[in-house]
Parts: sequence; structure tokens; C-alpha cells
Amino acid sequence: MNTFGHLFRITTWGESHGGAVGVVVDGCPPQIDLDVSAIQFEMNRRKPGQSHLTTPRQEGDAVEILSGVFEGKTLGTPISMLVWNKNARPSDYQHLKDLYRPSHADFTYQEKYGIRNWQGGGRASARETIGRVAAGAIAKQVLREHAGTETLAYVKQIHTLAAEVDTDTVTLEQIEASPVRCPDPIVSPKMAERIDQARRDRDSLGGIIESVARNVPVGLGEPVFDKLKADLAKAMMSLPATMGFQIGSGFDGITMTGSEHNDPFYLEEGDETARVRTRTNNSGGTQGGISNGENIVFQVAFKPTATIGKPQQTVDMHGNEVTLEASGRHDPCVLVRAPAIVEAMAALVLTDHLLRHRSKSCF
Amino acid sequence: MNTFGHLFRITTWGESHGGAVGVVVDGCPPQIDLDVSAIQFEMNRRKPGQSHLTTPRQEGDAVEILSGVFEGKTLGTPISMLVWNKNARPSDYQHLKDLYRPSHADFTYQEKYGIRNWQGGGRASARETIGRVAAGAIAKQVLREHAGTETLAYVKQIHTLAAEVDTDTVTLEQIEASPVRCPDPIVSPKMAERIDQARRDRDSLGGIIESVARNVPVGLGEPVFDKLKADLAKAMMSLPATMGFQIGSGFDGITMTGSEHNDPFYLEEGDETARVRTRTNNSGGTQGGISNGENIVFQVAFKPTATIGKPQQTVDMHGNEVTLEASGRHDPCVLVRAPAIVEAMAALVLTDHLLRHRSKSCF
Amino acid sequence: MNTFGHLFRITTWGESHGGAVGVVVDGCPPQIDLDVSAIQFEMNRRKPGQSHLTTPRQEGDAVEILSGVFEGKTLGTPISMLVWNKNARPSDYQHLKDLYRPSHADFTYQEKYGIRNWQGGGRASARETIGRVAAGAIAKQVLREHAGTETLAYVKQIHTLAAEVDTDTVTLEQIEASPVRCPDPIVSPKMAERIDQARRDRDSLGGIIESVARNVPVGLGEPVFDKLKADLAKAMMSLPATMGFQIGSGFDGITMTGSEHNDPFYLEEGDETARVRTRTNNSGGTQGGISNGENIVFQVAFKPTATIGKPQQTVDMHGNEVTLEASGRHDPCVLVRAPAIVEAMAALVLTDHLLRHRSKSCF
Amino acid sequence: MNTFGHLFRITTWGESHGGAVGVVVDGCPPQIDLDVSAIQFEMNRRKPGQSHLTTPRQEGDAVEILSGVFEGKTLGTPISMLVWNKNARPSDYQHLKDLYRPSHADFTYQEKYGIRNWQGGGRASARETIGRVAAGAIAKQVLREHAGTETLAYVKQIHTLAAEVDTDTVTLEQIEASPVRCPDPIVSPKMAERIDQARRDRDSLGGIIESVARNVPVGLGEPVFDKLKADLAKAMMSLPATMGFQIGSGFDGITMTGSEHNDPFYLEEGDETARVRTRTNNSGGTQGGISNGENIVFQVAFKPTATIGKPQQTVDMHGNEVTLEASGRHDPCVLVRAPAIVEAMAALVLTDHLLRHRSKSCF
Repeated sequence: MNTFGHLFRITTWGESHGGAVGVVVDGCPPQIDLDVSAIQFEMNRRKPGQSHLTTPRQEGDAVEILSGVFEGKTLGTPISMLVWNKNARPSDYQHLKDLYRPSHADFTYQEKYGIRNWQGGGRASARETIGRVAAGAIAKQVLREHAGTETLAYVKQIHTLAAEVDTDTVTLEQIEASPVRCPDPIVSPKMAERIDQARRDRDSLGGIIESVARNVPVGLGEPVFDKLKADLAKAMMSLPATMGFQIGSGFDGITMTGSEHNDPFYLEEGDETARVRTRTNNSGGTQGGISNGENIVFQVAFKPTATIGKPQQTVDMHGNEVTLEASGRHDPCVLVRAPAIVEAMAALVLTDHLLRHRSKSCF
Repeated sequence: MNTFGHLFRITTWGESHGGAVGVVVDGCPPQIDLDVSAIQFEMNRRKPGQSHLTTPRQEGDAVEILSGVFEGKTLGTPISMLVWNKNARPSDYQHLKDLYRPSHADFTYQEKYGIRNWQGGGRASARETIGRVAAGAIAKQVLREHAGTETLAYVKQIHTLAAEVDTDTVTLEQIEASPVRCPDPIVSPKMAERIDQARRDRDSLGGIIESVARNVPVGLGEPVFDKLKADLAKAMMSLPATMGFQIGSGFDGITMTGSEHNDPFYLEEGDETARVRTRTNNSGGTQGGISNGENIVFQVAFKPTATIGKPQQTVDMHGNEVTLEASGRHDPCVLVRAPAIVEAMAALVLTDHLLRHRSKSCF
Repeated sequence: MNTFGHLFRITTWGESHGGAVGVVVDGCPPQIDLDVSAIQFEMNRRKPGQSHLTTPRQEGDAVEILSGVFEGKTLGTPISMLVWNKNARPSDYQHLKDLYRPSHADFTYQEKYGIRNWQGGGRASARETIGRVAAGAIAKQVLREHAGTETLAYVKQIHTLAAEVDTDTVTLEQIEASPVRCPDPIVSPKMAERIDQARRDRDSLGGIIESVARNVPVGLGEPVFDKLKADLAKAMMSLPATMGFQIGSGFDGITMTGSEHNDPFYLEEGDETARVRTRTNNSGGTQGGISNGENIVFQVAFKPTATIGKPQQTVDMHGNEVTLEASGRHDPCVLVRAPAIVEAMAALVLTDHLLRHRSKSCF
Repeated sequence: MNTFGHLFRITTWGESHGGAVGVVVDGCPPQIDLDVSAIQFEMNRRKPGQSHLTTPRQEGDAVEILSGVFEGKTLGTPISMLVWNKNARPSDYQHLKDLYRPSHADFTYQEKYGIRNWQGGGRASARETIGRVAAGAIAKQVLREHAGTETLAYVKQIHTLAAEVDTDTVTLEQIEASPVRCPDPIVSPKMAERIDQARRDRDSLGGIIESVARNVPVGLGEPVFDKLKADLAKAMMSLPATMGFQIGSGFDGITMTGSEHNDPFYLEEGDETARVRTRTNNSGGTQGGISNGENIVFQVAFKPTATIGKPQQTVDMHGNEVTLEASGRHDPCVLVRAPAIVEAMAALVLTDHLLRHRSKSCF
């Protein structure tokens, strides 16, 4: 349904058109100095219309906090946040009312619920992720304050263009410096060019978002079902347009043998005690579903955006085969906005597991 | 934790050594004629020692049903099933007591819980999947009886050897006819040979399991978090040794453009009414996280088995760097046993979502 | 935490002072013609300041629906509702900032969270129930439309004054006709008088709310933990100021013997088939935790309101014993507003269980 | 369904006749030295046939632990426990096969599931509580070891005979010294006599179990729905035969005014710091749904046992009105066995909330 998480738990709500979209964050630890500008910063990273590379529809997306905070600090009670929907123009979508757009959720929503909000995707719209990003911004603050953990995500691949990124050293600044949020300075401009070409072609592109979490405490993850990799996979595959998730060596790892793939342990000398480390990180930071202290590195595949400008064959609700004509401007590559969303979901999962693990370990 | 599912819910328990392993299935619809031999059939598919290609350790794995069934029919009450552990020989594992085996869960369990059952993997052992398979066998019967839905899984790739399989027509018989459970008759013997080579090399192999669900009702999946693809991803990534999940076009789909990737709708004439179908199935059977009536097709990447015969560098609990010497015979490729497990998890997810959807749709 | 329900699920949020209070209703069946005025009607029944018998603080409590409804019908997506907090005057509460009011939640919130919103009760305020009542109003519509079930609640006792009410025939009109919401025309004016006296005494009163659900389908309740009586008990005991819950014969039933207490079954002839009924209803409408088709009748004890006008001994956060002086006008008996809240919670539990049962029974 | 708890979670299974009954305890903290004899001690307190005052059916009820424990310590993995059903004699129940026994669950189970195990109550039997008691025994050990908290329960009233018990000082020894588990030495023998009379009358008796938890940490309880009192109420009302729950002043408190009922705070000087206490405990140990450090005191009403020896009017499944004849020996008062069950449920709720609170407070 619309709630995610066990101890740090979010409930999102809202259609793309209609009153508003929002989220309730439940289980946030009390006494966190909530940085509201940090929440808005993430909202801005997510929103369309940031540059000519993203959707031209301008959205304000100013977040309002309605509860759970008192004199700047979290109360431990639910934090309710919302963003008003500003530019609802039903007439823009009137021609889609009876149509099933290919590879959108129109058909399945209509069949499942017998009704749907046909104005701009309704609940299946990417606008639904606003609540996730706002909640994730709070999770990031909890992670930073309580564990020093940092989550980052960036564009790893667009269409056939793959970037080289060092997961140990990549920074938010490097990511944000790129108009396509790809921290590889060589590939980034090529990606921008490819996206521009797709727009001119009235077509769209997909790609891969890679995410790294650094300084993750050892011990996060609750086998056997709530393994860290399982909850990360669910979080990512609950996003619109995602088609795949892989951690560590992922699908590529299968062409290795066990002796090549296993991550040998060694001891890293520290000031006081030696720390158990692995020389390679094919495991992607978890073993047995539990974080091992190495970087958590995973990738998410996003399909090319379903909304395109080219005419398409489809059917309508009344049993007619029809042609869906071009529908004005479109966003040829949502990946540019996706890093904020992936980071948010990663932060939500890690925070939930941090709290779950602490309930045991603090005895 | 150790419970999975919302309305059709399983709780698994048990270590690889110790009294037993088992599962409680809660929420099974009443009045199902339970086919116990079908449960045992799946247990046999899962168990090691089926052929020289799998682990030589013989396990009986005879399932006992302790509750929830009366005069052959399900009662609607919890169904408890267990399999006794027979061949616990602690001495076999004594040399592993203080060691952290590379890419196993020894280190993370020890760090998380401060204690672990070092006999054969404990809770992190693949033996934990016995409960999943037994529960999945019941789920399959519910799916078949109530929706006519069938789930299948098979070996799609081992190491570099990839099979060609037609998801529309592949049968259980074809899968079981292959000693490696790969229904491609050309590639299957090559895979067997590759596995034999890996055994001789005291090394191990990974691969891909592909799964298809056919005749799935339209409407399964509960956005926005409990999307069908999200719950399938969680189910698969909660299995030992899994490194990736992809549905439909998956990671490969990103090199397509939107106009290539979108699945055009058309009308398939039926006896009474036309049915909405898609000409391609890049979506893998779900759109907006909800099943659209096409085959659900997904793949799961399994890393090469962590247990190998070659010596490896590692550390022990006492802060020493040590060499882990070869440990007798090993199972060079667990994929041969994995189809039963993947099918089971797919059936559990689909049954849960069938019940969830019915709670709405039967009004 | 702040979410309640399994398939029909609500998440409430908001402090008594601060931006707003609200609720997200998840799992509402689609295609319900939502009667917004019916929601507002329940809000008005709940709100303070309805008559001189309730708190003089005027609250607008106009509910806004922000999502989940399209062209007047529910979409099956989350329904977000909120009510703005209008008259926040922190200065009214400044003198309570460091005090622990007796039998309020000041001390426990401060100890649990290390922080609290000291303006008017914060999250522990009765204002939190706004979200419950709004959600319950929707649940009532689902119950009525899908099962013909009606829930009612009324004042059964205030202080020592107990009413006579026939659970088979009592109507909403009779309840609302009484300024104290007690449908017994003899006792109702005495209760009003007693409340007036309590106000003059700067004291407060408690009492009992009784609730009846009529035309409940047989089969609601999910043993062994989610029995209908168990979920009703939790729902009621999650309300502020509740001290007890009893169903059917309740605490009084213990002075009967089994032969007196057992409800004999008989057959009630109907048009087509005979219906199994019980001659008495000591069971209160459930047996084995499952509804049996008789009226569900339960009672909830509310303690006398903790806020009184008399001076009281207490302590402050700084370790001083202090006297809490009278704090202006107060609400001497919240029971008058409680029927709307109890009805809402009953409706939420019944709706959730209706959906849960339907997921099984519609096969 | 059959799972209870959020972080410390139990899943029970089993019918009264059939293979076995049992429980899976999930979320138990690791490294607890598990005292198996303490688990068996609680099983013995619960089991029938302890004296001539309880049911003459002898049950062995020897608990077996199948997982989750290694070398005497909990692993943090699920603890599976079972008790075999020994004396299943279907013929004893053959005459009940088609009957609906008054105030039993036969009718509701048959209607809900369309099938039932008619041998001795099936899942609705009190035998189902075996799993709860075994799990509760583990919870008690967690509570004692991690918080020094003790839970006790005893017979407070049988039929019209009420006991005087000091909740501050009552001990397990005093409770167990009474054959009816009533620690009031004056009333205890009268209760035994009353039960004997009921047996001779072929009738049955109900009563009240009172429970106290001492040395409870401040801060347990998760508003607004998972208040401590709400979860205790649900736990108790999920037990067979319970009709009411009250905490602190309960239903009696409503005849007090607010100034009489409020619990004044004061400071109790300690060795180092003063502790906030209340002079009275009408609140029963929680305020705002959160423990305040005072004793948690609550009562549970159990109806007179539905199984009696007298003939009763009822109906059968085939639409006949019939007389249920006397069925041999019966247990005229289950209350004698109930303290172990109530203590177990209280311990489960408190342990779950201890873990939930610790997840926050240990930062």
C-alpha cells in the first residue's frame, strides 16, 4: 500500500493533479535539529524544469511542514509535509481521458480500481515521489547525526553512454556540477547532447542510477526477509519506471568464479583496534543481508520514459484501436532528476534499519 | 525479520544444524485440498544431493505437517510444517568456529548478534529456504485452484553459458528433464560440463535464474510501495547469494529508446469480448506496479557459491590473518537447486497479492 | 505508532497547536461516492464548543480533502484530509511550559522523547482524534454501502448517572436530540445538570460510552490475535482518557454461571432459509473472536477529564514541587463529544475486518 | 491473524487436536542465557489437570525447542517451540461434529471458513495459548535481564468472591501457594469450595484476573495507536473467553471526579536524584499511553466457561434445533490456569515495547 518502513516509516499520498501531494514521516527520533532548507534543497533537485534538459513544466514544490516539529526540533511525533499542486489544467489531459497510453499505468489502474484520475498520471505519476524525497531528506539528517552515514546517487549510464565514477571519492558537488548529474566530466556533456537529440527526435532515453552509501555501521539488516539488500531492492523497484536492481557485482558477477568473486578479509590497523575489512567489494557492502562496513553500492535500471512525442498505436477504454498523437513538450530523460529520489529511498531504508538494529544493540 | 507477506504470510525458522527447520503459513484460504505429495516434490527439487552435479551431502528433507489441515483440507488456520535436521556433526565445522569465511555471513552475524551458530552457516545457510519452498508449494496450489496461474523457473545462464528459452511455452517437464534444470537442450549439457570442471577446479559458478508466471490475473499489485515488481524484487533479494533482480527488459532495456521500448496495446478478439493485450512485453507483465495480464518475466542473478575448495586468505575472530584451507567436497553451483526456490517465492508473492486484490475486487 | 489497520488503514498526525492535524486513509475501496458533508457532520459532532456543556474554545474544524477523490468518487488511492489549527496562542500555555500536569501526558512525553510541545497537550491532546473521526466517517460510508452495517455510540453513564438504552432500537436522532448525547430522555437532563455543577465546582466528570453495531455480517475477525473484540479493545484503549473496555456481559458477566451466561442458539425462520440466531447476547456479538451476526455491543470507560479548575499539587521539570493554579475555563466532561470518536473507531475496525474477511470469502 | 508484536513478535499455530501446537518467537535479543526449565514451569502452570480443581484431562505439555538457541544462548534468530498433542481421540467428539455448542466458536468458524476441526475446539481451544505461554516465558527472561521488570497475575475474583491483594507486595510464591491461584488466604478456600460446587452443579464460573508489572521503565508505549494500554488491551482481549479489560481505576473510576481521580505528582528523594512519582495510581501506571514508572495494574474479565455439564438448547449445521446433552467431566473454572497466560501476554507486550523504546532512547 502507501506505507513503507518498520520503525522509520513513511506514508505518501497525492495524485499529480488535485489538491496536493505529501507524506507523513512516523518514527523519526526526537530532538533532531531539522534543517528545513536541506529538505527544500532535495525537493529542488527532484523537481522538473531545473534546466532545459528536464521537463519544461515548472513546478514550485515548496514544502510545508505541518506537524512533528517544535521550535526547530523533531518531537518524535509524526512529521506531516505537503506540497500544493499548482498548475492543474484538466483540459491539457482531456484527450487522454479514455486512452491507454503504452507502457503507462492507465490500463492497469483502470482495471484494478475501475476508476482513475486521468489528469497527468494520477497516483502513478512521478510527482508521487515528492513525499519520498521530503521524507528522505529527514532520513539523511538522522543518518548523518546518529551514524555519520552519507548516501549519494548519480547518473551512471544514459542510453549507451556509461560513466566512470569512483564510489570512494565521488562528492555531491561533483554530481550537482553536471547538468545531467553525472560526475564523469568526460561523459556528462555527451549525455546532455544525447538527451537533446532525443528531444528533437520526440523520443526518450533510460539509464542507470548508481548509489553509494559510505560509513555505514556494521550490522544493519534483519534476516531472513528484511535483509538490507532486499529492502533496498524493494525501495528501488517501488519507484516508477524502474526495471532492475543490482548490488555489488550484480549481473556482471556471474561470469566470475567463486575464487575470483569472494571478497578476502584482512585486518586494517586502526588507532586502537584492528578493523575487519575486505580487499574487494563484490558483495556491495552486505553479506548474509547485513552491512559489513564496506561501501554499499547498488545500481537501478530506469526504462526510457514512457511519455514520448512520436505517434503510437494503442487502444481506448471503449474497445477501439487508436493512434496516440504527439502531446506537446515532453521530458526525454527523467534520470536527471532521479538521483535525489534514489538517495532518498536509500536513506529511508538505512535509517529504518539503523533504528531496528539499535533496538537490539543498545542493551 | 522472519515473516513475509501481508495476507498470505509465512514465518520461517531454523538453523542449518540444530533441531529442525520449518515454516508457519498464515492466511491460507480454507477448503483447499492440500496435495502433500506436491509439497514433498518441491522439497526434493530443492534438496542437495539430487545428482552428482549438486552437493554430495544427502538430506532427507521429509516434510511433516503439524497443523492447519483437517481431513485433507486446509482449515484457514496456520499451517505449520517442519523438516528435521538429521546429520548434524559439529566436528565437521569445528575448524570454522573462529573463522570468517570470505563472502559468507560469519562476520556480519558475529558483529550483529555477538554470537553465531558456526555449524554450517546457521541461519544464513541455504537450508533456511526449506520453509520457503514448502510454503511456496501451498501457494502454488492456491494460485492454480483460484486463478489458474502457473509459476515456473529455470536456469537461464551459468557462468558465461546462456540459454535460449521461450517463456510462452517452456514446461516443467522440460526443466526437470535437464540435470542442470536448463530447458535449452543445446546449452544444458555444456552447463553440466562447466560445473564438473568447476568441481575439479575446486571452484564455483554463479548464474541467472529466469522465472515466468503465466495466466496472471490483471490487477495484482498495491501501489505505491507494494508494487508487484517491488515485492518480487524483495522476495528474490531476500534469498541467499542473490545479487540482482530485473523484470521485463531489465538492465538491457536502457539501450532502447522510448519508442522502441514502449509496449503497444492492441485488442485480441475473444469469444465474447476483446481483451487488451500488448504486442511486446518489455514491461515484463506489470505497468504502474500492477499486473497487466501478460506473462510476468523476471531474472535473478546468483553469485558464484561462496564455499569453494581452494585456499583463501581471511581473518579470524581473534584478530589473526589466516588461510582457510580446503574443506572437503563442495557444491560448485547451487543454481541447479534454485529454480524450486525462485518459483516458491514467486508463488508466495503472487498469492499474497491475489488475496489483497480480491479484498477489493469482490465487492 | 501512528498507523492503525491492516487493509483499511489510517495514519494520523498533528499536534493540538502547530500547523494542522490530519489523517491519511489508505486502502479505501474505489468508486465510493464520497459524501463530504457526512464527514463534516462527524467533525462537528466531535468539536468542542457545541453547547455550553462542552468546552468554550471555538474550533472551526473544517475538513479539507487533498487527495484520493476524483469527480466525487474515491480512487482507491490514499485519501489525505486535514484541518488547520486556527487559534494557537502560545502565551495561553506559557505557564505550563515546565509543569507536569497531574494525570496528563506531560511527564511521560518529556521522559520518553526528551522534548514536548507544551502548548495545549501537543500530540496527546484530544485534538488528535480529528483525524480518526474524519477517517471513521469514510469507513461508515464503506460499511453502509458494502454491508448495510450501522455503528452508533452514545453516553451510557456520566458519573453516577446511568441511562437505560435499547441497543436494538436506539437511533442517531435520539442521540443527537440530547445535549449530552444520552438517548435516555429521563436521565439526559440530569446529566446536563450534573455537568453544570461540575463546571461550577471547577471539577470534571467521567463516564461510559456504549456502542452498538447493527447488521454486522457473520465472519468478521481474524483469530487468534486479530479477533474482532481484540481490535475493538485496542482501538478504544488507544483513545485519550479511556480506562476500560468491555463487550457483551463484560465485567458484570462474571457473577453469572455458565448455564446462565451461555447464549442458546435457535433458528429464525426467514423468507428462504432459516438463520442461526442466539436468544440472548451475553457474547456481545462475537464468539471465538468472530462476529456471529448479532449486534456488537461494547462499552468504554472514560476517566474524569484531567484538566480541572481546582488547584493541584504537582512538580516541575526542574525538580520543584509546585501548585498548579486554575487555568481559566475548562471542559468538565468530554463524554459529550466522545460518541463521534467511539463510532469512528468502531467503524474503522469493522471496515478493516470486512475487507480482510472478503479477501477470503469472495473466492 | 496469528502473529503478534512489532519487534518482539510471536506466531502461534496448532489446533487442540492434530499433530502439535507451537510458536515461533522472532526478534528475541541474542545472547540471553535461556532457562528452559523456566519455560517448562510456565507450561505446567498453564496446563489442565494440575489439581482436582482443574480439568481432569491430563496433558503432558513438554516443550521442545527446535531453533534459535545455541549452546544455551539465544542466537537472535527465530526460536521455534512446540508441544505434541498426545491424546487425540476423535471419537470423544464425534457427537459434536454437526452441533453448534452455545457460546463456543463452532458456529462462527463454520461460517467464516466453511470448515472446522470439530475435535475439541480446534484453533479456538484454550490449548492455543500454549504457544503464548512458552513465548511469554522467554519474554519474562528478557524483561528481567534487561530491565529488572517483573510481571505477575493472579485470581482477583471468582463469581461473586473478590479477593484483597496488595499489588506492591504480592509474590509468585503467594499465588502458587493457593490451589486457585488467589493470594488472599481468606478468600482462596472459599473460591475452591465455590468451584467444587459448580462442578457438582455441572455448571461453570467466571471471574477476574488481575495483573501487576513492577519496576517498569518510564517511556514504554508508542502513541497514538500503540499506546501501552491499547496493546495490553488487545493482548488480553485476544485470549479465549475474555470479556473486558480495565487499567488503573477502570470502570470504577468513573464515579470519581477529576480532582479525586488525578494522580498528584511528587518528588521521591533518591540517593543521587529525585524521582518523579505519583501519590495515587488511578492511572494504572501509564499516562498518555506511556509508562510512568508506577506499577502497571490491570484486570481482565473472563466469562464463565462455555463448556458445562447441563443440557442446553442449540441448533446443528443441518437446520435442526437440538439438545446438547452433558458431555462427561468438564473444567468448571479455567481461571485457575489463566494467571500464567495473562502474565505471558503482559510480558510479551512489555518486551516488545521495551525494544521499541530502546530503538529511540539508545542514541
